[in-house]
Amino acid sequence: MKNILIIGAGKSSSALIKYLLGKSNEENLFLTIGDISTVNATKLINNHKNAEAIILDVFDKNQRETQIKKADLVISMLPARFHIEVAKDCITNDKHMVTASYISKEMKELDSLAKEKGLVFMNEIGLDPGLDHMSAMHIIHRLKERKAKLLLFESFTGGLVAPESDNNLWNYKFTWNPRNVVLAGQGGAAMFIQEGTYKYIPYHKLFRRTEFLKVNEIGNFEAYANRDSLKYRTVYGLENIPTMYRGTIRKVGFSRAWNIFVQLGMTDDTYTIEDSENMTYRDFVNLFLAYSPSDSVELKLRSYLKIDQDDVMWAKLVELDLFNPKKTIGLKNATPAQMLQKILEDSWTLQENDKDMIVMQHLFGYEINGEKRQIESSLVVLGENQTYTAMAKTVGLPVGIAALKILKGEIKTPGVQLPITKEVYAPILKELENYGIKFTEKEVPYLGYNPNNVIG
Amino acid sequence: MKNILIIGAGKSSSALIKYLLGKSNEENLFLTIGDISTVNATKLINNHKNAEAIILDVFDKNQRETQIKKADLVISMLPARFHIEVAKDCITNDKHMVTASYISKEMKELDSLAKEKGLVFMNEIGLDPGLDHMSAMHIIHRLKERKAKLLLFESFTGGLVAPESDNNLWNYKFTWNPRNVVLAGQGGAAMFIQEGTYKYIPYHKLFRRTEFLKVNEIGNFEAYANRDSLKYRTVYGLENIPTMYRGTIRKVGFSRAWNIFVQLGMTDDTYTIEDSENMTYRDFVNLFLAYSPSDSVELKLRSYLKIDQDDVMWAKLVELDLFNPKKTIGLKNATPAQMLQKILEDSWTLQENDKDMIVMQHLFGYEINGEKRQIESSLVVLGENQTYTAMAKTVGLPVGIAALKILKGEIKTPGVQLPITKEVYAPILKELENYGIKFTEKEVPYLGYNPNNVIG
Repeated sequence: MKNILIIGAGKSSSALIKYLLGKSNEENLFLTIGDISTVNATKLINNHKNAEAIILDVFDKNQRETQIKKADLVISMLPARFHIEVAKDCITNDKHMVTASYISKEMKELDSLAKEKGLVFMNEIGLDPGLDHMSAMHIIHRLKERKAKLLLFESFTGGLVAPESDNNLWNYKFTWNPRNVVLAGQGGAAMFIQEGTYKYIPYHKLFRRTEFLKVNEIGNFEAYANRDSLKYRTVYGLENIPTMYRGTIRKVGFSRAWNIFVQLGMTDDTYTIEDSENMTYRDFVNLFLAYSPSDSVELKLRSYLKIDQDDVMWAKLVELDLFNPKKTIGLKNATPAQMLQKILEDSWTLQENDKDMIVMQHLFGYEINGEKRQIESSLVVLGENQTYTAMAKTVGLPVGIAALKILKGEIKTPGVQLPITKEVYAPILKELENYGIKFTEKEVPYLGYNPNNVIG
Repeated sequence: MKNILIIGAGKSSSALIKYLLGKSNEENLFLTIGDISTVNATKLINNHKNAEAIILDVFDKNQRETQIKKADLVISMLPARFHIEVAKDCITNDKHMVTASYISKEMKELDSLAKEKGLVFMNEIGLDPGLDHMSAMHIIHRLKERKAKLLLFESFTGGLVAPESDNNLWNYKFTWNPRNVVLAGQGGAAMFIQEGTYKYIPYHKLFRRTEFLKVNEIGNFEAYANRDSLKYRTVYGLENIPTMYRGTIRKVGFSRAWNIFVQLGMTDDTYTIEDSENMTYRDFVNLFLAYSPSDSVELKLRSYLKIDQDDVMWAKLVELDLFNPKKTIGLKNATPAQMLQKILEDSWTLQENDKDMIVMQHLFGYEINGEKRQIESSLVVLGENQTYTAMAKTVGLPVGIAALKILKGEIKTPGVQLPITKEVYAPILKELENYGIKFTEKEVPYLGYNPNNVIG
């Protein structure tokens, strides 16, 4: 029997656990699922004989190492900053490891040790990062085999609400960690390259510099640029590609309205507001507007940010009850970002029957035999319910499939890695299709930024 | 003979050294002026018998302590982060110390030791901080003695170019460290309180939320808010004052044009630009604009930031030669802020005969016998030349006067402190008048933000 230790039984573990339990008889697997509470794990196990929920405090070195020793492979579904101690124990005790998180500097430093010991440390194998890498490399490698010259790579991903549950003016609900949504784009300028020209967008302009995209029959979307698209040139082996852009997908119009919060300063998480607890929603808005003894918060905001009377953005703000003079925030020593999150959660929390949706699209521009062409590869995944969400499926299934293939020796190149080699992505993408995670690919006209080669 | 050790012979030390040398015969002083080079100190000493220039590396503990041991009082004119080692040596060797910098956490921690040993550690006794504290406390204490209730305190300071040298469209030149000007306002939201309502301005809106002021016959100015005005409520003993605001003065129109750089992202100092060295001024601008194969950098900028054809801001940008396609930046691995600074230095460096100007204004709103009144206290100081600048005088003279008064036992309350007690500020302000640093005070109508007590 092969023992898999899964640390973390949060939202993203449901599809992972379901997948592995489904394979457990056939593949002779036993899952130990550790978290600081067994409530969620017990629910996900649902009395299946091949799994056990245990209380595991990842900061308790003894307990952690005892469990890791018993396992053949460890999957850490914890937030990224907690992986490293687990990873070190995996090195000490000769265990493979899988995570869905970006490779940290500390994790990277374990690479030679992992190689020495023949251990596979697979990271960035969730949705984004994960499925994005795999589906991109699948086509990039194919184009390179055909001796195509890559001209453009653009990649967009978004966690959205499913069309059937899309019933607010923002066309958005929190399908993932709300805090990450509020803080999205902060921490530095967005960087990318277009037609060989570097471009940098500061945070306060990010949500006004969106790109537009159309995804099959699902409709029109927009995307704001991710932090650092430049570093993926090296990762994907596209060092000299003239256009490289990665972005986050929202429904059209979201970003322009979100920009209101950014402009006001409501997404700032670096300082706390005096008396935040007793402040009303309306007081909160007024913090960021000029003082007036008589003018209304509404008019001050309209005037300050030049919001026309007939602008739909205004209705979006009203829908959030942002000007309510009675509802209080109720959070002590809160930052503006925390206060805004509280207000948004009133409106954007998924209701019991709401479903989520994952949308991903890659564009590959290339030249072959002197001809410029473009491939558009798109993925739409709908959630089943609030346990088996599209997010949980697209994060958890690649993790689970990778874990099993590592255990079975089908993925065997050792070291700290992400899924960009054919050995890894090809079988995983293939198996994902059985679970409805399938990209549709089409040839479209080449739509580079500079079709006529004008210098600018 | 009393020995004074001055560490740092930079721009701000000229008036300080001149003042102390002028007093040296009468007061029996000897100055030792240490810096990593003796060039500037030698020039400032100009063969005066009561002073000596020495090479002093503040990081050389032996050398530092040897010199501190020989002194009766130490003045550190180094950048703020270098004071602490000097301060610790002053504690060890029982020496008084004077700096013009904000009291750091580490400096504050020496308070009880300084008190124990009867040492005066006077800080924040330059211009801003310094003269602002003293001139404000002078009037605040007077109003409190008259049992007035303080309603409003606003304080504005600016280092500008003198009217006779004010010959560019920005009405601005670098009269101080250019880097600080480029980075001004960064690092967090500006915070203040107006009529009991907290207000927070994010950096990207700071230069569009200016206040206006008129200073005697010198003209109209604007001010953008300083980082944290709130903390001065405690420092000045004005805990319950409904309006407290501190700002930085510029000539009218500067901030609105500066905002262009902020909006573009050109003041960002957190990342470096690829190939910054070979980039032209025009390339630099284009980094922050959308890609186009044919549209000009000029039109893209106008369109992006909605700069009308007849807007004087445009002429300000052109004056800086910002669109020059031939001038290169020439700085390796530079941040946007460093690149912008380079471009600005071409235009804003003081010419040989240029003079600077310091402008300060305080507004005190108060209620006495049921009547609301306001005092306006203003200071204008002009530089003599590029050595004895207004900045050097307003920073160096308070430092020098304080140092001498500490040596003579006229300022004697020990501890780590700033000049907010009458013992300190009263004699210093009086002596400063001999050097042309004199506030003019007038009663003006009360101009609080909420004269009619409307709730808003």
